Amino acid sequence: MSDARSDGLPRPSTERLAADLCALEAFTRPDRPYTRRAFSDEDRAARQWLTGRMTEAGLVPAVDAAGNQIGRRPGSAPGPALVIGSHLDTVEAGGRFDGIAGVLAGLEVARCLHAGGHRLAHAFEVINFTCEEPSDFGLSTIGSRAMSGKLDAATALRLSDRQGRRLADAIDSVGGRGATLDSARRAPGSILRYLELHIEQAVSLERAGLPLGVVTAIAAPSRYRVAVRGRQDHAGGTPMADRRDAVAAAAELILLVERVAREVGRAMVGTVGFIEARPNMINIVPGEADLLVDFRGIDRAAIAETLERFETGAAEIAARRGIAIEWTSLMRDMPLTVPPEMVAVAEAAARAVDVPHRRLTSGASHDANHMAALCPIGLLFIPCRDGRSHCPEEWAETEHLATGTRVLLELLLRLDRDLT
Amino acid sequence: MSDARSDGLPRPSTERLAADLCALEAFTRPDRPYTRRAFSDEDRAARQWLTGRMTEAGLVPAVDAAGNQIGRRPGSAPGPALVIGSHLDTVEAGGRFDGIAGVLAGLEVARCLHAGGHRLAHAFEVINFTCEEPSDFGLSTIGSRAMSGKLDAATALRLSDRQGRRLADAIDSVGGRGATLDSARRAPGSILRYLELHIEQAVSLERAGLPLGVVTAIAAPSRYRVAVRGRQDHAGGTPMADRRDAVAAAAELILLVERVAREVGRAMVGTVGFIEARPNMINIVPGEADLLVDFRGIDRAAIAETLERFETGAAEIAARRGIAIEWTSLMRDMPLTVPPEMVAVAEAAARAVDVPHRRLTSGASHDANHMAALCPIGLLFIPCRDGRSHCPEEWAETEHLATGTRVLLELLLRLDRDLT
Repeated sequence: MSDARSDGLPRPSTERLAADLCALEAFTRPDRPYTRRAFSDEDRAARQWLTGRMTEAGLVPAVDAAGNQIGRRPGSAPGPALVIGSHLDTVEAGGRFDGIAGVLAGLEVARCLHAGGHRLAHAFEVINFTCEEPSDFGLSTIGSRAMSGKLDAATALRLSDRQGRRLADAIDSVGGRGATLDSARRAPGSILRYLELHIEQAVSLERAGLPLGVVTAIAAPSRYRVAVRGRQDHAGGTPMADRRDAVAAAAELILLVERVAREVGRAMVGTVGFIEARPNMINIVPGEADLLVDFRGIDRAAIAETLERFETGAAEIAARRGIAIEWTSLMRDMPLTVPPEMVAVAEAAARAVDVPHRRLTSGASHDANHMAALCPIGLLFIPCRDGRSHCPEEWAETEHLATGTRVLLELLLRLDRDLT
Repeated sequence: MSDARSDGLPRPSTERLAADLCALEAFTRPDRPYTRRAFSDEDRAARQWLTGRMTEAGLVPAVDAAGNQIGRRPGSAPGPALVIGSHLDTVEAGGRFDGIAGVLAGLEVARCLHAGGHRLAHAFEVINFTCEEPSDFGLSTIGSRAMSGKLDAATALRLSDRQGRRLADAIDSVGGRGATLDSARRAPGSILRYLELHIEQAVSLERAGLPLGVVTAIAAPSRYRVAVRGRQDHAGGTPMADRRDAVAAAAELILLVERVAREVGRAMVGTVGFIEARPNMINIVPGEADLLVDFRGIDRAAIAETLERFETGAAEIAARRGIAIEWTSLMRDMPLTVPPEMVAVAEAAARAVDVPHRRLTSGASHDANHMAALCPIGLLFIPCRDGRSHCPEEWAETEHLATGTRVLLELLLRLDRDLT
């Protein structure tokens, strides 16, 4: 392949990316593998590390009111910026690549531009978004929500965790200004294009033996909190026919979620990741159970059918068992279609640097979902081992990360040229 | 009805029993309704109260090495004692009658004997057994186990709760001597008969409109700890077909327990009272789930069939889902048949004092189960509202408690006469 395709710039370095991944592993909890929850000491340490790396890569580091870390490389002309972003925070016992791969890819692109002395026509920004993963404040993608105007200061001042800490104060603890969060908002059009590289968190690339995926659509989550209210009884003295067992009803709901997602198909998934029973003792028929239900899909009709079948099925279980089942919709997002021209230019970039690829859809949401409210977005996937993610076993080959970064660099250069 | 039937003794007093129940409510946790866990401050306060009431009723109070409170009334001749017992401890958010009714009935019987100046031929004991309910040491019926030789000092010194407190030390905290627990053991034959009055914890008496049940058999629990080990995955990125969802497999197990108990019938019950999922987060396919399973039955063949069908079904779920399901048998007790002559004398006593009654079986285990290793036992049930137990709503009419106590007194007198 020809280096000329990327304007004679140095190629992204597998070794540098491997060293970055290794460096970030140091900023995780000593007692929980690869855990760097947002707003933690580990998060602050990783941010400090990134500020140093951004500066070395010729980026001017800054932190907006939402705590988003933004490293900026000025363009040769004023106007909206090209942005590459993702996040450094993880779930509890999370992985080393989810989000991290995207931030490091952006950093490595900046290094290549800096080392090659290449001045883009447009300003270029690398962003580490604040708290993409679920937080103790009941909210995820906090940084990209704020940037896209979906989270305001009033909300940040109102939401608090179980210890009573306000989200606004948590944001302050990573260098943001929660009380003036609204100033993190960017106007539509102020960003020219948003690009993100991410691990696939699924197995299609690995199975196809391909190093790159070009995402055409991102699934949207629809979430419920479900309260099952039966009757607490003695486990020995209560005949089966007289029971109102909340956990048995919850079990039917769990299998309903699974069955509906499978039967509706069209890439729908459904998960009951959280269950809590009360009083949760071996000799008591449980009176109460709470569930959190997460459906995701990329097809609007499939999502609507899934939710309708779930709600109908839950009502049927409640009626048949004589148990109260109440669901609250926590979230009903719409799936995101990546603009066809962004898919096309990403495919052209991959072809230009001879990287085999395929189109695919994303089951998971990313910061890109919110950034799509501001500008056209592009999303690239690299394979991850066995599709595992949000777990200590999460793994991606550094070679794949470097390959994806090469396409990302080529894509950035093409957008910079084409949109001038 | 004729008072002569009970040898001219005063009748058990509804008012005194009501006052006792009210007094014991004071020794519960202020923040949790009717909670008096064994070895707690509330337990110690209730024991102190009972010591005072025993003394007033002419009983000589003592505490054995297991912490069992024993109030003794000497007989006119040496020899084995007639015993009435139950327990004052409760489950978390437990009721005001489970166990308590039986201790108060024994106390009231002693008061009637004392007030009437009636000397029995045999010694008579009222026992408040230590920790009948499940404890943080993984064991229930601690006092009656120790008395029947099924719990020794070595075990009490080995078992500890999550805070690291040894069972032996907990026993010491209520006046026992855990290190010499073996001395609480009674020799078979050293107790002549054991009687217990208890709330039914089911609805058959209430539905039949009867104030008394004579128990013919006590169900035995068979318990499992079940570890479900699937694979933790991203809830968005993992297609349904690629999942090894531990909570979905657990849901099938929960419904299996319910279905097997229903289908085997013959009074079998099955409960999953405890479930814990990990990591228990909305956006993660759960990798692990733990369940505690409790089956109970009174028919040995039905129990065997239930356990076999459960284990076969669990293996089928594991194989079909490609998930590891491992079960550990925690307990496989045999059901207890009450000696027919004890059922007959209890029925005769009820007839003698004109109390309508029926035969029934007990779904729950009691201290009587262990005492049956030492001597023939008799078990009387009184109705409880809606069959509810192990919950704050647990309720029995004081009138029913007094009626049951009347039968208990008559039964005691008959045994005392007949066995001389």
